[in-house]
Amino acid sequence: MQDSSILSFKKLCVIGCGLIGGSFALAMKAAGLVDQVVGVGKSADNLAKAKARGAIDSEVGSAAQGVVDADLVLVAVPVVAAESVLREIRESLSPDVLLMDVGSTKRDIVDAARRVLQGRLPNFVPAHPIAGKESSGISHAEATLFRDRQVLLTPISQTDPRLLKIADSLWSAIGGQVRQMTPENHDATFAAVSHLPHLLAFAYFNSVLGHPAGADYLQMAGPGFRDFTRIAASDPDVWRDILWTNREEVLKQSMRFRQALDAFEHVIRRGDQSAIETLIRTASDGRAEWSIANARTRSGR
Amino acid sequence: MQDSSILSFKKLCVIGCGLIGGSFALAMKAAGLVDQVVGVGKSADNLAKAKARGAIDSEVGSAAQGVVDADLVLVAVPVVAAESVLREIRESLSPDVLLMDVGSTKRDIVDAARRVLQGRLPNFVPAHPIAGKESSGISHAEATLFRDRQVLLTPISQTDPRLLKIADSLWSAIGGQVRQMTPENHDATFAAVSHLPHLLAFAYFNSVLGHPAGADYLQMAGPGFRDFTRIAASDPDVWRDILWTNREEVLKQSMRFRQALDAFEHVIRRGDQSAIETLIRTASDGRAEWSIANARTRSGR
Repeated sequence: MQDSSILSFKKLCVIGCGLIGGSFALAMKAAGLVDQVVGVGKSADNLAKAKARGAIDSEVGSAAQGVVDADLVLVAVPVVAAESVLREIRESLSPDVLLMDVGSTKRDIVDAARRVLQGRLPNFVPAHPIAGKESSGISHAEATLFRDRQVLLTPISQTDPRLLKIADSLWSAIGGQVRQMTPENHDATFAAVSHLPHLLAFAYFNSVLGHPAGADYLQMAGPGFRDFTRIAASDPDVWRDILWTNREEVLKQSMRFRQALDAFEHVIRRGDQSAIETLIRTASDGRAEWSIANARTRSGR
Repeated sequence: MQDSSILSFKKLCVIGCGLIGGSFALAMKAAGLVDQVVGVGKSADNLAKAKARGAIDSEVGSAAQGVVDADLVLVAVPVVAAESVLREIRESLSPDVLLMDVGSTKRDIVDAARRVLQGRLPNFVPAHPIAGKESSGISHAEATLFRDRQVLLTPISQTDPRLLKIADSLWSAIGGQVRQMTPENHDATFAAVSHLPHLLAFAYFNSVLGHPAGADYLQMAGPGFRDFTRIAASDPDVWRDILWTNREEVLKQSMRFRQALDAFEHVIRRGDQSAIETLIRTASDGRAEWSIANARTRSGR
């Protein structure tokens, strides 16, 4: 990293040149924050595309080779593959490198970093840009992917505060709305507002599909169903990893959900129409308030 | 009913002049299918609005009075209030009247009709136009509300086939896509694709709201959450009645949902990542297929 400009990098190594990795490289280049980008990936075809898109300048055969002399490294591989990448690159990392990941769950990668990174643990700033799209892969990468998107940084006590500050500035510079939280809080938060809804949508869809008359039922489904189940179409590979790496929080919050469902079923069985209405009103008012607050937050950016 | 034109009515009586009742009256007038519309309702203010909107020509003080000499009667009151309306009008109904309701659940109203209507039971054609909007009330009524919307008719063995046919033609004439099914199949179908998703969305929202950190979690919620919970903002009065009147099917299908959720939690706990992926893929593929079939159905109309 050049001392003259804290946000200028000489060599960025992107490990995993898909939608997120490719978009990050494009965004860094577009912002003029990096001189050279080296790409690492399992598929030669994919790396060729990344080069053709201008996301990377060159590719190298291994992650360990790619990170040599890099002052910025982005690990953009699936969460479950991240630990072996960290293990592979550890010995080759520069002493002052800023090392980040982009995984959707954070306790798992932080635990892996603690196990693996040793002397380079302070260089690691765990990151989660909330910037998925329906389509994945390098061909959908774009320099503007992170613009106005939330980016969560989840530092631990060992994280170098100077590198954390640089990471914060860097994501802001490419358009992100950066927030910091603990890995634990991150995973609990996203279990609540993202992972559990996905689990419920998957389970709900399977329960309809599994019904003997399911196909007939589905023909009658309308706009409410469409919106409620949209996330059930999510990518199985991505969501297997998320549900697995965040299983503890997801199961805990699924239990809370079951209690809320129990409460409903109890008053329905009891025939307490006033209590049914009260439970619905709590949800309905809460959702209406969220909608207003959410609109305000977005427009207030 | 005039014999010259099977679809021309002399007097329509609308009991309950809200969004659905008002829109039905406007649609019938716009299509030139009715000479005169009489409105009945609890609120004088609301009836005045219905008159100002041109939905009704006159109002009368009681449902029993309103249905006298009417050849078409629409009961558009909440499901739980429908039985007392049927009881009130029974003695005043013309022998050849076409009597319909518009409730979102059908077994309940059919049971009520069997208890109450006696000699007029054949005149009753239970109907469910799928045409809710976010906003209710006469001020949101419009003649086009039923255009391209599904309208379910759920006749029983006693229903007069001639009146059923007229009902079918009538809803088609004002733009509806009419289907017939049994009351039991109707309630099972909508429990599956509408009522259960609402129940789950309500329960899920309450589980997040009830969490000590719920307010913080909600700040981080994104587009997936927004779509998944949109139906949680639904009207508490309407949905109390729906969950209550269709409780048997809703509880049965909630049990099926719990089994599907159990299956997920089981493989997550067991750490069987391949099985997690398989369950997600079933839902994901199923949802993608539904989306394609649904788009085809809509455009193929």
